Amino acid sequence: MTGHSQTTTKESITEAVLRSFDSCDNERLGHVLRSLVTHLHAFAGGTKLTEEEWLAGIEFLTEVGQMCSPSRQEFILLSDALGFSMLVDAINHRAVDGSTESTVLGPFHVDGSPVRQHGEEIIDTTTGQPLVVYGRVVNTAGEPVPGATLDIWQNAGNMLYAVQDPNQDPNNGRGVFRSDQDGRVWFVTIRPVDYPIPHDGPVGRMLNATGRHPWRPAHIHVIGSAGGHRPVTTHIFDAASPYLDSDAVFGVKPSLVHRFQPHQATEAQTPDGMDGPWFSVDLTIVLEPLPPPRTSQPHQRRQD
Amino acid sequence: MTGHSQTTTKESITEAVLRSFDSCDNERLGHVLRSLVTHLHAFAGGTKLTEEEWLAGIEFLTEVGQMCSPSRQEFILLSDALGFSMLVDAINHRAVDGSTESTVLGPFHVDGSPVRQHGEEIIDTTTGQPLVVYGRVVNTAGEPVPGATLDIWQNAGNMLYAVQDPNQDPNNGRGVFRSDQDGRVWFVTIRPVDYPIPHDGPVGRMLNATGRHPWRPAHIHVIGSAGGHRPVTTHIFDAASPYLDSDAVFGVKPSLVHRFQPHQATEAQTPDGMDGPWFSVDLTIVLEPLPPPRTSQPHQRRQD
Repeated sequence: MTGHSQTTTKESITEAVLRSFDSCDNERLGHVLRSLVTHLHAFAGGTKLTEEEWLAGIEFLTEVGQMCSPSRQEFILLSDALGFSMLVDAINHRAVDGSTESTVLGPFHVDGSPVRQHGEEIIDTTTGQPLVVYGRVVNTAGEPVPGATLDIWQNAGNMLYAVQDPNQDPNNGRGVFRSDQDGRVWFVTIRPVDYPIPHDGPVGRMLNATGRHPWRPAHIHVIGSAGGHRPVTTHIFDAASPYLDSDAVFGVKPSLVHRFQPHQATEAQTPDGMDGPWFSVDLTIVLEPLPPPRTSQPHQRRQD
Repeated sequence: MTGHSQTTTKESITEAVLRSFDSCDNERLGHVLRSLVTHLHAFAGGTKLTEEEWLAGIEFLTEVGQMCSPSRQEFILLSDALGFSMLVDAINHRAVDGSTESTVLGPFHVDGSPVRQHGEEIIDTTTGQPLVVYGRVVNTAGEPVPGATLDIWQNAGNMLYAVQDPNQDPNNGRGVFRSDQDGRVWFVTIRPVDYPIPHDGPVGRMLNATGRHPWRPAHIHVIGSAGGHRPVTTHIFDAASPYLDSDAVFGVKPSLVHRFQPHQATEAQTPDGMDGPWFSVDLTIVLEPLPPPRTSQPHQRRQD
């Protein structure tokens, strides 16, 4: 513990707070906190934040914290709605050599989805417009990746994910698929629908107060992974959604927007069971190969 | 509602979030949020914040929110410990013409303290070192301010404020005094003692992880006010405290540090009831006169 000599004028207080972290043993923690303090103080100084605004901020953050529960994470929602989550995603996942771009995981992923066979329905298809996803997993050289895993989840026609909706089978709208020798996967689902992020709490109030809507454009979630490749967490966005340009959580990247092609049941390639209009979408997941692991040489000292 | 066209690369996402506030009717709210987003994004970008660190931050803020209760405000504590509260104080209260400087209100103020007579004891003086406060309220021209109010509160010898301690009388350590014709006030108390801010929660964990202690230097709280003058919320700090240079909430200003003078009960000016060593401190509260209110002219239109 070192003293941090202080005279807390407007001009000197930031320095005093930065010096207070001089004894921090964790170098990274000290660096992150010093940066945070510098920016928070610049925010208050630049806006000449009033005491009423400060108190409103304290009360807002308190309400966000108290809205959190095992089934609701309002701080992640706030991070999402301020584009902070997508920024952290962009900082940590740079798509390389044409590999598929990432986007937010979102709060509705559930581990342990059932492994399904190609062509299987992942959802009660009577609740929406039937959609066939024709997928292919390749590497950045364009070569098929056999045995890759696609973990898929999406909402039902009532806008809800199974995990939000006690009236759905827990496995409705989700499944895990393995790619075949050609890297191919296909399955039957319905077109996902636009839905609002939870907006009955403080984050919803912020959106409302700032003239923003809570809607996300319709999308299917995909986590693509394969041995020896970097996994990717991404979306298939429906190009027909009116919310592509105003996703409440800023998750849309142009490369992730797909046209869902309309078909008639009379067409030659119509899968079994489609007896009316249906849609299809082609999905290519491009995975970046990881460098081979280094041979371990446990008894050899590194030269400095 | 306007759309905010988005491509969320690391380079463009901040712009997209700023544009999302374009429809905000409340100009000040939009300005404050745009500044906050700019600084938060610069913080994440500058530190190359990892996803693990982001999640640790989410979990920390959630815990801070959930620690809040009617008797505990952990977000204010966090604001205090990051020097944010004192910065907001400094932005909003610039001491003018030698008027008394302000510092944090803190969480222990209670409205409605008993009005007491000059010379009265505000605390059970058997629980610490007796202290006599000789106060004077003047304006920035040095003229006495009669009828000014000093609202006083402090901790007891066990480090606790009455509001924290069911074993103290609720009025122990607090009182309201009115200045006489010469602007004078005097009362009997004990020397306040150093105490730690509540450190059994996430803020305490942050202090511990960064090598900081939770202590505040001993002080008496004062709110000075008088008709026609700007009120001031301030402290009397004890110059003997070892924590003056490392106040956990950055509240110390040099002008607020006072020497508590030692005395013997045998001295001529010893007040009644002092039968052993005692201390005194001279306190001058300097209030800034406010400009006279403008005459209201309800039926006259302002010229543009």
